[in-house]
Amino acid sequence: MLFKEKVLAQFKQLQDEICQGLEALDGKSKFQEDAWSRDGGGGGRTRILEDGNLVEKGGVNFSAVHGVLPEAVLKTLDVSGSNFFATGVSIVLHPNNPHVPIIHMNVRYFELDDGTYWFGGGIDLTPHIIEAPKAADFHQKLKSICDEFNPEFYPEFKKWADDYFFNQHRNETRGVGGIFYDKLTTEKTGLSKDELLDYSVKLGQTFVPAYTAQTENRDLAYSEEERQWQMLRRGRYVEFNLVYDRGTKFGLQTSGRIESILMSLPKNASWLYNYEPTSDAQKFTLDNLKKGIDWLN
Amino acid sequence: MLFKEKVLAQFKQLQDEICQGLEALDGKSKFQEDAWSRDGGGGGRTRILEDGNLVEKGGVNFSAVHGVLPEAVLKTLDVSGSNFFATGVSIVLHPNNPHVPIIHMNVRYFELDDGTYWFGGGIDLTPHIIEAPKAADFHQKLKSICDEFNPEFYPEFKKWADDYFFNQHRNETRGVGGIFYDKLTTEKTGLSKDELLDYSVKLGQTFVPAYTAQTENRDLAYSEEERQWQMLRRGRYVEFNLVYDRGTKFGLQTSGRIESILMSLPKNASWLYNYEPTSDAQKFTLDNLKKGIDWLN
Repeated sequence: MLFKEKVLAQFKQLQDEICQGLEALDGKSKFQEDAWSRDGGGGGRTRILEDGNLVEKGGVNFSAVHGVLPEAVLKTLDVSGSNFFATGVSIVLHPNNPHVPIIHMNVRYFELDDGTYWFGGGIDLTPHIIEAPKAADFHQKLKSICDEFNPEFYPEFKKWADDYFFNQHRNETRGVGGIFYDKLTTEKTGLSKDELLDYSVKLGQTFVPAYTAQTENRDLAYSEEERQWQMLRRGRYVEFNLVYDRGTKFGLQTSGRIESILMSLPKNASWLYNYEPTSDAQKFTLDNLKKGIDWLN
Repeated sequence: MLFKEKVLAQFKQLQDEICQGLEALDGKSKFQEDAWSRDGGGGGRTRILEDGNLVEKGGVNFSAVHGVLPEAVLKTLDVSGSNFFATGVSIVLHPNNPHVPIIHMNVRYFELDDGTYWFGGGIDLTPHIIEAPKAADFHQKLKSICDEFNPEFYPEFKKWADDYFFNQHRNETRGVGGIFYDKLTTEKTGLSKDELLDYSVKLGQTFVPAYTAQTENRDLAYSEEERQWQMLRRGRYVEFNLVYDRGTKFGLQTSGRIESILMSLPKNASWLYNYEPTSDAQKFTLDNLKKGIDWLN
């Protein structure tokens, strides 16, 4: 079995495991699958869950595509190959309750026919209302996985997430961050390709337990004001995804499957002119949408 | 009086006239003004109207800024000056009723200290539910103003609007179009600078009567389904403004006043996965979000 086939098989299984875990967590709705194929080669399985007990709208997407790299992309890379293979699992969940955070995860693998390859990924949490102990729990779980592989991963990838998940025009992080990494190779990390794959999969397998710990307030009552605040925070999420997110931009530019790419957008979002926070919880949240916060200490 | 001062004064007055006209049309809410100044030089008057009878959220912005052109912008221009002056009026209105269209207008003037100058602008209509006679009325009113100045303007600027107000990733125009133009000079049009200013102002003055004609269904009852459809169309509007709109992108990149720039976003918008139209009116609308439709014949 070629290495890329191993990655594909394990990512596909990861999607299955996460969907099963999330359906159990939600307790009401089931994922609906759309299998699609790409004109240039390959395809994917888009799975959407809507109107659940916990999740208002969410998606767990798997794709494995191959073909000739578009000229525009090729120009940005220092490579000699032009036939690519790319596979990944991408998740975004927008919960019903403003006391439960939005969550995102992505693990991906890319290779070219000249031997170039890399792993990338990330997982980050966007609470509508930040609670420090929950942010700490999330970061601790990510750190534990990272530390199993390389003690430098967590501090490096945590900073990378702060820099990446950032709404420059608002001078505001998207949420409490997490980890982000790209172009990991054996050369850069000292880990074999199999170990790098193992890291991606382990990270994926921590998704459901990590999110479960964030959902204990899923049945907490909330006010109209808290719901409106949630809609405003979702508006910021839309801004990040449409203005900055590399995967989204790449997908829109290369005519990817639009409905799969934009599954990351919430069912509802809101923008109010010059909104000022109306509660201490809102103020605390805004004060903590900053780079460089060490949630673990 | 320098020419740029004349433009500034007339654009400022245009903002006043349009705000008065829109308050009368709305019949309930008044514009709230935020005057702001820019660190690098100049400033503006952002005027927002919310929760009106007709308008759910809308803004009529005036700005006149000057200073040294950012390096990033300078690189995209073939000019020798670097001190710029720019003034404009920008409008976006999101109505309450899905039977009333979203509307946008912008007129702007730019000059450099090397003698470079140009006028730009545009006005376009985004019906949630397209009605051909209303689209025709809108285009006829724009054509009439254009024809007073140059019979080539309307056909050229109508095509330009089709190409500009286009969600490439959806293969869908934003609405029924209108006109768009940029970098108009005496050399290019045969019109004097005063005539080009007059064209911009006349176009601005047709905004209120043109929109008034679009609002006759403002009190028509609508279903939950029609409201949801409106929210989805607003989602597309958000996509265009955040992904493609040059003014928005320029503003976000150059640290403009974010709340003034993003006043164009609606109070509420929605995204549903893989939504399929549920009525003939929705299907007709989607079928007519295309370039090159001649609404006048």
